[in-house]
Amino acid sequence: MAERLVVVGGDAAGMSAASQARRQRKPGELEIVAFERSHFTSYSACGIPYWVGGTVDGPEALIARSPEEHRARGIDLRMRTEVTELDLDRGRVRARDLDEDGRESWTGFDKLVLATGARPRRPALPGIDAPGVHGVQTLDDGQALLDTLATTGGRRAVVVGAGYIGVEMAEALIDRGYSVTVLDRREQPMSTLDPDMGALVHTAMCGLGIETVRGATVTAVLTDGAGRARAVATEDTEYPADVVVLGMGVRPETALAAAAGLPLGESGGLLTDLGMRVRGQDAVWAGGDCVEVLDLVSGHTRHIALGTHANKHGQVIGANVGGGYATFPGVVGTAVSKVCDLEIARTGLLERHALAAGLQFVTATIESTNHAGYYPGARPMHVKMLAERRTGRLLGTQIVGREGAAKRVDIAAVALTAGMTVEQMTALDLGYAPPFSPVWDPVLVAARKATAAVRAAGA
Amino acid sequence: MAERLVVVGGDAAGMSAASQARRQRKPGELEIVAFERSHFTSYSACGIPYWVGGTVDGPEALIARSPEEHRARGIDLRMRTEVTELDLDRGRVRARDLDEDGRESWTGFDKLVLATGARPRRPALPGIDAPGVHGVQTLDDGQALLDTLATTGGRRAVVVGAGYIGVEMAEALIDRGYSVTVLDRREQPMSTLDPDMGALVHTAMCGLGIETVRGATVTAVLTDGAGRARAVATEDTEYPADVVVLGMGVRPETALAAAAGLPLGESGGLLTDLGMRVRGQDAVWAGGDCVEVLDLVSGHTRHIALGTHANKHGQVIGANVGGGYATFPGVVGTAVSKVCDLEIARTGLLERHALAAGLQFVTATIESTNHAGYYPGARPMHVKMLAERRTGRLLGTQIVGREGAAKRVDIAAVALTAGMTVEQMTALDLGYAPPFSPVWDPVLVAARKATAAVRAAGA
Repeated sequence: MAERLVVVGGDAAGMSAASQARRQRKPGELEIVAFERSHFTSYSACGIPYWVGGTVDGPEALIARSPEEHRARGIDLRMRTEVTELDLDRGRVRARDLDEDGRESWTGFDKLVLATGARPRRPALPGIDAPGVHGVQTLDDGQALLDTLATTGGRRAVVVGAGYIGVEMAEALIDRGYSVTVLDRREQPMSTLDPDMGALVHTAMCGLGIETVRGATVTAVLTDGAGRARAVATEDTEYPADVVVLGMGVRPETALAAAAGLPLGESGGLLTDLGMRVRGQDAVWAGGDCVEVLDLVSGHTRHIALGTHANKHGQVIGANVGGGYATFPGVVGTAVSKVCDLEIARTGLLERHALAAGLQFVTATIESTNHAGYYPGARPMHVKMLAERRTGRLLGTQIVGREGAAKRVDIAAVALTAGMTVEQMTALDLGYAPPFSPVWDPVLVAARKATAAVRAAGA
Repeated sequence: MAERLVVVGGDAAGMSAASQARRQRKPGELEIVAFERSHFTSYSACGIPYWVGGTVDGPEALIARSPEEHRARGIDLRMRTEVTELDLDRGRVRARDLDEDGRESWTGFDKLVLATGARPRRPALPGIDAPGVHGVQTLDDGQALLDTLATTGGRRAVVVGAGYIGVEMAEALIDRGYSVTVLDRREQPMSTLDPDMGALVHTAMCGLGIETVRGATVTAVLTDGAGRARAVATEDTEYPADVVVLGMGVRPETALAAAAGLPLGESGGLLTDLGMRVRGQDAVWAGGDCVEVLDLVSGHTRHIALGTHANKHGQVIGANVGGGYATFPGVVGTAVSKVCDLEIARTGLLERHALAAGLQFVTATIESTNHAGYYPGARPMHVKMLAERRTGRLLGTQIVGREGAAKRVDIAAVALTAGMTVEQMTALDLGYAPPFSPVWDPVLVAARKATAAVRAAGA
C-alpha cells in the first residue's frame, strides 16, 4: 500500500514540497493529500501590494499554480479546508471543511509537512477587528482590502507600521489616490535598517507625499456608528482613516504545532534540522513562514517570512520526503524593497542584531553613485557596512539608492555566506562598465572604508 | 635626501599608484615624477564609446583628475612626455618631450612603476594606418575619431571585431546616425561569450539595425585618391566605409619593458607578484593594462584590460611603494557590457577556457526573467553556468538579458572567488521582491539546473 503524505498549507512551502515529492515518487508509492483553508494555492503574497496599488492585475496573475493544476499532477488538494488538530501519536490530522457547514474528519498520515504560514501581527487594541482594518498576508486578505477600497468613499488611509509591508502598502495606497499616513512606534521608518540608513528612507517618503509619524503608539481603532473603522488613535491624537492597513510584520502561524507539543523558537516559529525536519520528529517536516531558520551570521534562529525562503524549504522538504537528500543551510537575512523609485536593501546584521549576538564591530558608510558619474542618470547610492572588530569579517550591509541599489546587496549576501572579510571584498572582481557601475563599485568603496575602520580600531 | 619614485603612464594605474604613495609619504620623503605621453591623465577609457555616441560630453567628463589636480597634490607630472628607454641597471629612464622638438633627457629613480597601458590590435594589413581608421584606447584616440566623424560627409561605418569595444562602438556609431557593419572573423558575435550565448547577442544586434558579418577575414583597408580609407576588403567582398573602427581588442604596451629584459607572459603582459612587483625585481612595480593577472579559476595568468583592475593595481602598488602592504589576489574574469538595452555579462571561464585549463565540466542554460513575471516590464534573461565535473565547483557564468542582467553576474563573481559549488549556490540568500527578481532568482535557477547536471554526469 502507498504511504500517505499530508501537507498542511497550500502556499509556497507546502505545495513546493508536495510537487517535489510527487516528482520523486509515483502516486502508487506515495499518496499526497494537501489542505488549504483559503481560496488560493501557490501564490505570491509578496505581490499583494502591487495588486492593491494597481500595478499588477490580480489575483490570477499572482498565482503560480492553481488547485486544478496541482490536482492534475496527482495531488489530492482539499481547498477551503482547515486543519484544526494534529494527532502525532496516532498519525492523523483533523480537518474542517469551511464550505460544508464546518464538517470535520480525520486523515491519517505516514509523513506530515507543516506549512501553515504566518499571520499579520494584530495588537489587542479596541477596534482592531473592525471592518476597514486589514492585514495583507494572503490573497484573501488582498481581495478583502480591495473590496473595502472599492466600497469606501473616502481617500484617507492610515498604515500602522513601517516595515517592508507597511512601506510597500503606503506606496500602493498613494498609487490608488489615497492620502497616506504611516504610524510607526519607532523613532525611524524602516526598522529593518539601522537608524541612519532608515532616515534616508524617511526623507524619501516625505518627498513622495507620504506622511510618516514616528514614535507613534497606537492605542485604538475608532469606529463609527456602524462599527466601521473611522480613525486611528495614538497616545497623542487621532488620525482619520477610511481604511487602516496593518504593516507591523507577521508571526508564525504555529498554534496547531504548539498544541501538538512541537518545538518552537523564541519567535514562535517551528524549529527544524538542516533537512527541514521538525526537531525530535521522525516523520514531520516544516517550512515557509511558520519556521525559524538559522541565521548564518549571528548563529541564532530567526523568523523571516519571505517567499523565496519558503520555496527553497519546499524543495528541500520534498526531496527528503521523497527519499532524496537536500538541506537548507540557513539565511544571511537579505531583504530588498522599494518605495517608488527608492530602492532599499539589507543583508546580514543590523547594529542592534550584532550587539545582541555578542559581536563587536566597526561601521563604514559611503555615498557613491549607481553608475559612472558622467553617464546619464547617475543617482546617489548609500552603502553601510558592518565588519567584525579584529577579524574584519563582514557582518552586514545596507544599501539605499535608486536604480541598481537593491540587487547590489547580493554581492554582500554571497560574501557573508562565504565568510569573507571586508578586506577580501576590496579585491572582488565585480562587473564594471560606465552604464552599470563607477570604476569602483559602491560596494568596493564601502569595503575599502570598512577595511580602514577595522585597521583603525586595532586590536 | 628624498627617494624618487618614477611612474611611467599617467592613466588609472599609474596615477592611482602615485596618489596612493603620496598619501602615505610626504614630498620630503618621496619625490614623485610621472610621465604621460598623451594630453590627458586619469581618465575613463571605458567611457569613450559613450562620448563618441553622444551620450556623454567629453573629454572633460571622462577625466577623474586633471594634470593640474595631480600637480596640486605634489606629483611632478610631465605631460606629452614619452619614456623611450628603461635603464634598470643605472636606475634611470629616458624620456622624450613630444612638444619640444623631441628633446630627450634622463631621470633617475629609486622606485619605478610601469603603467604603460595597452594599444589596440592593428593587424599588418594594407591601408590599416590610413586616415579614417581608428582605434579607441585613449582620449586622444577618441578625439581623433570624433574629428573624423565631424569632417566626413558619409554615413557608413565599418567596425572590425565584435568584442566589447567593437559592440559598444557599433552602438555609438548607430547613435550618431551611421549605418554600421561589424566584421568579425569568428562565426559568432561577442567572442567574449560562448557561441550559444553570443548568438543571443547577434540576434539582438540585427534587431538594432547593426549588420554583423561573421567569419569575415579582413584583407585590407582600401583607400581613395587622397589616401583616406574608403572601404574594408575581406576575402569575399568589400564594405564601403567612411570611417573604420578597430575593435579587435588590445595588446599590452610592453615594448619598453621587453627591451629592458623584464619578464612577460604569454599575452605579452608584464608578470608580477601578488604585491604587483615585477617578478625578479626589487624596485619595479607594474599595473593596469600592461600586466597579466592571475585568473583565480584557471590558475593561468591572463591579460585583461579594464579600468577597474587598473585602479585596484594602482592602489596596491601605491600602498607597497609607500611602505605599506597590499596585494591584488587576482581576477575571476568578470566583464559587463551593453548594446542599447541588451545587457551582456560574464565571469569565470568560457567553455574554451575551461578546456584549455584542463578542466572537465558540465553546463546548464536557463531562461527566466529579470523580475517577477507578473510585475510590469518583465523581460527574458538567459543564464549559462559551467560547473566542474564531480566537484560541482562553479567555473563560469554568462548572462544575456535586459535590465538587471549585467550586474547579476556579480553574484557568480563572488561565488567564484569563494570557490563555491553550484549546489551551495542554490541556497544563496539573494534579494527577492517582485520588482527585482522572480521568487527564484535566475542565478538560482541556473545553479539548480547545473547541480542536476553535475549529478547526472556522475563520477
